[in-house]
Amino acid sequence: MSRIAYVNGHYQNLRDAAVNVEDRGYQFADGIYEVCEIIGGRMVDFPRHMARMQRSLRELRIAEAMPLASLKIVMEEVVRRNRIDYGIVYLQISRGVAHRDHGFPSPEVKPSVVVTAKSLNLAKNQATAERGIKVITTAENRWPRVDIKTVCLLPNVLARQEARDKGAYEAWYVDAGGFVTEGASCNAWIVTKDGKVVTRTAASGILAGITRAVLINVLEAMQLKLEERNFTPDEAYHAAEAFVSSASQIVMPVVSIDGHAIGDGKPGGIAKRLRAEFHRFAAIS
Amino acid sequence: MSRIAYVNGHYQNLRDAAVNVEDRGYQFADGIYEVCEIIGGRMVDFPRHMARMQRSLRELRIAEAMPLASLKIVMEEVVRRNRIDYGIVYLQISRGVAHRDHGFPSPEVKPSVVVTAKSLNLAKNQATAERGIKVITTAENRWPRVDIKTVCLLPNVLARQEARDKGAYEAWYVDAGGFVTEGASCNAWIVTKDGKVVTRTAASGILAGITRAVLINVLEAMQLKLEERNFTPDEAYHAAEAFVSSASQIVMPVVSIDGHAIGDGKPGGIAKRLRAEFHRFAAIS
Repeated sequence: MSRIAYVNGHYQNLRDAAVNVEDRGYQFADGIYEVCEIIGGRMVDFPRHMARMQRSLRELRIAEAMPLASLKIVMEEVVRRNRIDYGIVYLQISRGVAHRDHGFPSPEVKPSVVVTAKSLNLAKNQATAERGIKVITTAENRWPRVDIKTVCLLPNVLARQEARDKGAYEAWYVDAGGFVTEGASCNAWIVTKDGKVVTRTAASGILAGITRAVLINVLEAMQLKLEERNFTPDEAYHAAEAFVSSASQIVMPVVSIDGHAIGDGKPGGIAKRLRAEFHRFAAIS
Repeated sequence: MSRIAYVNGHYQNLRDAAVNVEDRGYQFADGIYEVCEIIGGRMVDFPRHMARMQRSLRELRIAEAMPLASLKIVMEEVVRRNRIDYGIVYLQISRGVAHRDHGFPSPEVKPSVVVTAKSLNLAKNQATAERGIKVITTAENRWPRVDIKTVCLLPNVLARQEARDKGAYEAWYVDAGGFVTEGASCNAWIVTKDGKVVTRTAASGILAGITRAVLINVLEAMQLKLEERNFTPDEAYHAAEAFVSSASQIVMPVVSIDGHAIGDGKPGGIAKRLRAEFHRFAAIS
């Protein structure tokens, strides 16, 4: 089956789905995106993703391209036309098409809206979670506005590729102070030997992940102790557990960081429980 | 007349010139670009631009999409089809189209090549140069790899817009050490009261501008003294002259920085001479 994409009012085969070469998303990385998990054909945590999207647009002064209710219909339609049961839906909004000039174009230029969706292999993801993933650390080199979910992702691309080149799955950024910020496309977590779950505060250096926010609710419900604070790679090497969170991975156990086995080198019990419990707490649209 | 663009082997109306929504340039800012000035229908400093382009591609491990000789023919053809006498030609190369995944796609994925061109209004540019432009300073917030000419330009977009919002034309970045790095899309220069021309070294914090490199040759030929070193906004406020350089602006005098009039508040003599002499030294293809 061909995949179907939505581009600026039209549903079309992904192969033909195109944006103008002067789209500011292409020439300037002048746009934002969101990724929602789909379960049973329905979007997970849609309202929170849309709230974050609206904040990203506000921070960049990009107009809202359409009412949220319409956008929801479009995203659901893309999910439906692609017959996604389990997978992700991807939304990208750029500042639109205008003759190349760094400054913002005329307010009459309409933002571009692209929606795609794809099935993920649940059994394969589950098998990966049962093995756990390897992580490397790399120096933070992104701009300070990582709180905005922009498509200015080249540093993340290079960090992920560095991980792959080193036989790992993901890279964790380490800031100038020596603390882990987040992964190239996920939030980073550790569990201390006395069972505290630790992740950096969303106040600086990271994107406020939606999955991260839901996990904080899950932790409360499970009466696990959360510490929102900085941690170093060295603390992570010696942690009882480590894991990452993102919409497409939910909770993915980390079994090795920079070649150091975490805990007993197998996915940790808390990570496994969080992964199992997550969808009881996520809002399904 | 419709503008014509080249996209992956085809010349087409700019309005129809499009790239797939899964082009990595669109989803990840995973691409590079070059801008060459055109004079009398011919490209200025083409070999230097191509050498820098090849370096950018190497740094990002993007394959060369086609031999340089072919690329030159394409760029000349776009200039010709757009009947450009004076203007710019824009080349963008991305890592190509692949299903979304941060890491590099299979080596079989071919880079995307886009070439556009547009006429510039020489009389209008000249009038701007005769008035001079206003500049503001803003905190450096780009990633450290500004030596690569990537399309990861959102920080530059926001800096340029900040300048515009403040009634200025360009923003100069100031690094954590308090030194000017460069403009949002140009290199930054000052002239001291004793006639030394000062610009930051290309060793860190800036893109090695082609126009900047040619200007260094022009300075030598004019027996002007060059100092490649850091300077602060405060030194710039009190300089005899200031100017910016880029392929589309060549030498553009700066008459105000953060509201401080530079020199007598009019374009400086050295900047005017450099602007006038530049094309005697640039290589015309």
